[in-house]
Amino acid sequence: VGELELIAAIETALADRSGRLVRWTGDDAAVTRARPLAVTSIDTLVDGVHFERGTHEASDIGWKALATALSDIAAMGAEPGEAYVSVVLPEDFGEPLELVQGMEALASECGVTIAGGDVVSGPVLVLTVAVTGWADAPEELVGRDGAQPGDLVGVTGELGGSEAGRRRLAEGSNAHDALVARHLRPRPRLESGRALAAAGATAMIDLSDGLATDARHVAERSGVELRVELDRVPCAPGVSAEEAVTGGDDYELLATFPEGLREPAESAAPLTWVGTVSAGGGLLLVGADGPVTGLSGYEHP
Amino acid sequence: VGELELIAAIETALADRSGRLVRWTGDDAAVTRARPLAVTSIDTLVDGVHFERGTHEASDIGWKALATALSDIAAMGAEPGEAYVSVVLPEDFGEPLELVQGMEALASECGVTIAGGDVVSGPVLVLTVAVTGWADAPEELVGRDGAQPGDLVGVTGELGGSEAGRRRLAEGSNAHDALVARHLRPRPRLESGRALAAAGATAMIDLSDGLATDARHVAERSGVELRVELDRVPCAPGVSAEEAVTGGDDYELLATFPEGLREPAESAAPLTWVGTVSAGGGLLLVGADGPVTGLSGYEHP
Repeated sequence: VGELELIAAIETALADRSGRLVRWTGDDAAVTRARPLAVTSIDTLVDGVHFERGTHEASDIGWKALATALSDIAAMGAEPGEAYVSVVLPEDFGEPLELVQGMEALASECGVTIAGGDVVSGPVLVLTVAVTGWADAPEELVGRDGAQPGDLVGVTGELGGSEAGRRRLAEGSNAHDALVARHLRPRPRLESGRALAAAGATAMIDLSDGLATDARHVAERSGVELRVELDRVPCAPGVSAEEAVTGGDDYELLATFPEGLREPAESAAPLTWVGTVSAGGGLLLVGADGPVTGLSGYEHP
Repeated sequence: VGELELIAAIETALADRSGRLVRWTGDDAAVTRARPLAVTSIDTLVDGVHFERGTHEASDIGWKALATALSDIAAMGAEPGEAYVSVVLPEDFGEPLELVQGMEALASECGVTIAGGDVVSGPVLVLTVAVTGWADAPEELVGRDGAQPGDLVGVTGELGGSEAGRRRLAEGSNAHDALVARHLRPRPRLESGRALAAAGATAMIDLSDGLATDARHVAERSGVELRVELDRVPCAPGVSAEEAVTGGDDYELLATFPEGLREPAESAAPLTWVGTVSAGGGLLLVGADGPVTGLSGYEHP
């Protein structure tokens, strides 16, 4: 399949679900009607670093690349809009269309339009997704910098499932295993992100590198200490609290709220309160026997 | 240098020149104030495919990656805004900061803000740039689909210089050679693009793959025939007309205009008229002895 045939096939596989596209495929750039604020993130996944072709179907790789980028939009509380996708295809990779179809499957779930892209050849499979979300006013969005002493710290969902799924996948399990499915096809918490932002979250971040790393980012950007009780961390089945806070790729959200907004926060999304914010700096993880040190998530290298 | 130190150094190297940024570095996504229309393109360059580390300085690679993406914004007639940059860094590549500095040098010339990015490790150097431009109304922008029978076909600048420079670079010339400089640091024709759009261009495209390929895209999208006279093609010094229409990476613009807009078009940008549009389909290249077949630019593989 030549480049032009592939691009034509890709374009056929895509749907415009935004209602905002003025120009789409076939021009030098896509044109979309904007809302007042554009919220944009870009993320790259590399074969052998962020996924393994040996254990991931092409469609799972496409799904994950879009999920990773959309999770950043979720963490801001923005409404997802358009995705722009670049793929480096090695000669021995025969399923570029399946890759796009996997991405489109998630796009369909999330109301996202894949509005542009680039396909080039190269020695290793690389996917880059730039995604734009939209908002109408800065107050609708939540950064990492607003956590205040006295705030509660909450997380959505269960943690550690993706990393446990990754290990099981390497051991031969498949997508029928619920944890493996969580690893292969993470779901960005877009609805929860918007609802938590609307409920008054003071800071928010997605748990892509593991709570032990990501909660520290919130602490540093907000100039506060986040104290997280390990025995309150919601763990995926069969996962210890230590594994839950160090495992990455969960794409759940961590958010902070003033005590007075506890109820609206709980109504907004399935939250578990795992700790509190106080004056100071950094992340304090507390176990049954006191502070636990030496735990960190992973920085994608 | 660790990832966090590198990101901190990169952030220090960047300037906000948009006046539109609401949130920049340090959050999950960048937030910018939008104008009514967002014009977005994404482009990827891979070492060994689109450039050679052996002959390109890191700063040249960064420059070229941004130039490639901005050229698409130029071809739409949009005003450039923000760039989002992803870099896959192999272990043996020691100059990531120089790469960003080269990109920032072009961003500074063009009034562009590098507003976000991702840095990951991988086996080969890959740069992806997603760039957003802005416009206020669809009529300000030009696609590939509006060329009409009777229109004139014009190109900016001189063609074939980048490909000639690439060959000279491989033979040992350096950036003091003007053609080599053109290859290493192409300049996207952003001002010309906007001026040509304002002057009433009916179709426009950037010459990234060579006129013999890109003019065909305009013909196909517009449903017309573009006839280009080889002896009217403006050639870079020492370059034949055949080389000028097949060499890529010039990043000049091709635009079509109704005959009645000849003068405004010439006032808008340094244009050379190279042919005409007629009913029919495809690209007709005409030499001294009649139609010339078998010439094509390159599709980036």
